[in-house]
Amino acid sequence: MFESAEAGHRVDKERFRREERELRAELLMAQNTLLRSEKPFQVLLLVSGVDGAGKSETIAQLHEWMDPRFLLTCAFEAGRNPAEAGRPPMWRYWQSLPPRGRIGIFAGSWYSRPIARRLAGKLARTALDARLEEINRFEAMLVNEGALVLKLWFHLSRKGQAVRLRRLERDPRTAWRVTRETWARTRSYNALQKVAAHVLRVTNTAAAPWTIVDGSDDNYRNLCVGRLLLDALRERLAAPPAPAVVAPVPRPAIDARNVLSALDLGCRLDDRAYARELPRWQGRLAELVRRRAFAGRSLILAFEGMDAAGKGGAIRRVTAALDPRNFRVVPIAAPTDEESAQPYLWRFWRHIPGAGRVAIFDRSWYGRVLVERIEGFCSEADWLRAYAEINDFEHELVAAGAVVLKFWLQIDPDEQLRRFEAREAESYKRFKITPDDWRNRDKWSAYQQAAVDMIDRTSTGRAPWIPVEANDKNFARVKILKAVCKHLEDALDKD
Amino acid sequence: MFESAEAGHRVDKERFRREERELRAELLMAQNTLLRSEKPFQVLLLVSGVDGAGKSETIAQLHEWMDPRFLLTCAFEAGRNPAEAGRPPMWRYWQSLPPRGRIGIFAGSWYSRPIARRLAGKLARTALDARLEEINRFEAMLVNEGALVLKLWFHLSRKGQAVRLRRLERDPRTAWRVTRETWARTRSYNALQKVAAHVLRVTNTAAAPWTIVDGSDDNYRNLCVGRLLLDALRERLAAPPAPAVVAPVPRPAIDARNVLSALDLGCRLDDRAYARELPRWQGRLAELVRRRAFAGRSLILAFEGMDAAGKGGAIRRVTAALDPRNFRVVPIAAPTDEESAQPYLWRFWRHIPGAGRVAIFDRSWYGRVLVERIEGFCSEADWLRAYAEINDFEHELVAAGAVVLKFWLQIDPDEQLRRFEAREAESYKRFKITPDDWRNRDKWSAYQQAAVDMIDRTSTGRAPWIPVEANDKNFARVKILKAVCKHLEDALDKD
Repeated sequence: MFESAEAGHRVDKERFRREERELRAELLMAQNTLLRSEKPFQVLLLVSGVDGAGKSETIAQLHEWMDPRFLLTCAFEAGRNPAEAGRPPMWRYWQSLPPRGRIGIFAGSWYSRPIARRLAGKLARTALDARLEEINRFEAMLVNEGALVLKLWFHLSRKGQAVRLRRLERDPRTAWRVTRETWARTRSYNALQKVAAHVLRVTNTAAAPWTIVDGSDDNYRNLCVGRLLLDALRERLAAPPAPAVVAPVPRPAIDARNVLSALDLGCRLDDRAYARELPRWQGRLAELVRRRAFAGRSLILAFEGMDAAGKGGAIRRVTAALDPRNFRVVPIAAPTDEESAQPYLWRFWRHIPGAGRVAIFDRSWYGRVLVERIEGFCSEADWLRAYAEINDFEHELVAAGAVVLKFWLQIDPDEQLRRFEAREAESYKRFKITPDDWRNRDKWSAYQQAAVDMIDRTSTGRAPWIPVEANDKNFARVKILKAVCKHLEDALDKD
Repeated sequence: MFESAEAGHRVDKERFRREERELRAELLMAQNTLLRSEKPFQVLLLVSGVDGAGKSETIAQLHEWMDPRFLLTCAFEAGRNPAEAGRPPMWRYWQSLPPRGRIGIFAGSWYSRPIARRLAGKLARTALDARLEEINRFEAMLVNEGALVLKLWFHLSRKGQAVRLRRLERDPRTAWRVTRETWARTRSYNALQKVAAHVLRVTNTAAAPWTIVDGSDDNYRNLCVGRLLLDALRERLAAPPAPAVVAPVPRPAIDARNVLSALDLGCRLDDRAYARELPRWQGRLAELVRRRAFAGRSLILAFEGMDAAGKGGAIRRVTAALDPRNFRVVPIAAPTDEESAQPYLWRFWRHIPGAGRVAIFDRSWYGRVLVERIEGFCSEADWLRAYAEINDFEHELVAAGAVVLKFWLQIDPDEQLRRFEAREAESYKRFKITPDDWRNRDKWSAYQQAAVDMIDRTSTGRAPWIPVEANDKNFARVKILKAVCKHLEDALDKD
């Protein structure tokens, strides 16, 4: 794998000067074309490799060549910081994604920790492979969202590494970079090579392939990376990527029976029973979130349903049991422009709660396969791949300790009409009815089919959908509270 | 101060039920009017007071009454978390401001830490007063930016506190809230009353007055806070606040001599001297930011100047000396919609570097008194008050350990014209010239006067302006690097 990177590449000073001038002008031009493009995309340049192979030198060179105002360089500490507690490992990288039109340079990336932990013997081979598979899916999602992902591995032979580190040590300007720990790490050169070769092989995907760069000669390495970036930018600016291969669109069952039609919308709970049950389950929930075990977990609830299905009222019955300092209700409307400049899941990642906290989404990431699908806000390929991307997302949340529950509040069209009319009659609820609501009513069956497809494809054992018979508000609210208590209790009891 | 809050207020269950129904509907209506307003404003509700006075109960009640999706409740830990290292104390609150149209409830606020530290004997009276004066200026800025700031102090008599805490302890649903520490704190009741009375008196400003609320009776307290919020919302929705009193607009000096006209734009540095000086000062800077002392400080550079004054080139000569993993260049263009929904300084606060880091602003918060003043993007009152607000902002940065330097790059109109023409000739720089640039040229003297006013009013000993003769790029770049080194070295030597 690393053979060609040990072929003794060298570029002399004169050739470097000659080529650098042109390369720089072209990189600047490409960077600006990207920034001003009508369809800008995000560029991620991952810089990894062995100690002394010139990672920081090349990053500094790119900053000299290009416009540093539109480069975002991120470095990540080896350990986890307190803000990451209770959040998935990928959370820190989501926080650092460059917006479309910018180039993000990752000095250290989602590869660093798995490699380091494997080397330290803290990660079994199977666990490493599971992590790499997650990374592959994450990168494929980025690429499908339009990102250009370039992954560089800077290589040195064992001897070459010793030569370069001694040279860095001799130069007073760079001596500070070679520490006792650096030399200690060189002793595990062979082990690192072995792990790296495996990681690179498994993650060398068509969507986001690796490039191995010989790190021994500064001029060669810098020109090589500059050209690689330039070519990739130009190619991508000239031709947008082909749309992803599309799975067949889900078809409704031939007998029109499905998870929603099977619900009994006649379910009711009378006011007396409600007055008894509601405080009972609110009390239980209040107790559960204050258990010591919850301090290390989090709770994420997503509410979906037709307009006027009662999402807001149900959410208020849940929050009544919680301490306002520990929960946040996140209403999902049109994305802000900062959110539109990112992959669609980004705006949900930014609200993922930390340990001991609750986030309640009033509408959610499922908008992708509901409103965006039906209104054509995204392509068919986009919403078709979203099912798996969403499952991955929720899997990451659950793996980090979150309890994830999704509620679909089901009403029938007559009930919706009654509620619309009641809202228009009640002065302080009138604002809730907009022309959009009446328009969406016409698309009732399309929304129903989208909801069925969604539940069938994304209800997993670890992050289940709970369909709620919601024609009767009392019944719906108590059913939701009970479900939250039950799943939360199960999760805490397992700890 | 607290007398009326001990008058034995009580509201019985029946009156509460009767008034609650109407209050709730009106609060919801006001919340929605705010959200849908053409000129929404941010609402900050600060909830402070003694232990057991019902702070969380009332916050929970507001969540029940109003739409929790548009309430943002923030609680703050007592200590500083690692992300705050090197950043001013107000940074955490800036991160938590609600956008316009939303209501932010602060359980604990910028008052908590000064009061706690004063009580613990860690803050001298004079230091406390200095802190309170900063808070007053901060709140006045928020109010001038359109915010509605409501400050509540929940009071209990010493005896009343003991009664309430014992009641909380008896109820299994609330017993967890009364800990040994709570009882320990009650022993310093008198000391807290004394400090609180002083803090409330000093910060009881016309822009953001305090309301003292008797905490002993739940019904009374909740109705009282609900009404207060409702009345304030209604009043503010009905009539926008009167514009702030405006200081006289600065007048140019009668002899047209000023800090910029005094510059000798003939200053030059020939290429040989430049080739010698540039690496010398870059090397010095590289060494300075790697000193151990810098790990606890930060460096903030702001670059302003006419178009084509050479800001970008100068910034690149500075960044060449830095490790890309430790600096960020922040280009300032039009605000995003998330930024527009906040006070104007918010979008700079979000880029304030942590300890050991460098932030370089290509254009800055001074846009307020330059482009926004000249193009009329803000009112005269807005840019006139901005001088003092900016001085406060920079003072906070410096007090937190930042070295803050501001560079004005001065060129003359002939030199600008030469550069515009050169850019249009060079293919990869052509994008840099826009019709706006030619338009701004016509406003040359207005920009010059704005720059003079700005420098005269915001160049302080701790955050100085450095006017740079920039007709010659060599000279300008070296002067800037030397100034950065000198000020940074002085600051580090003082440690």
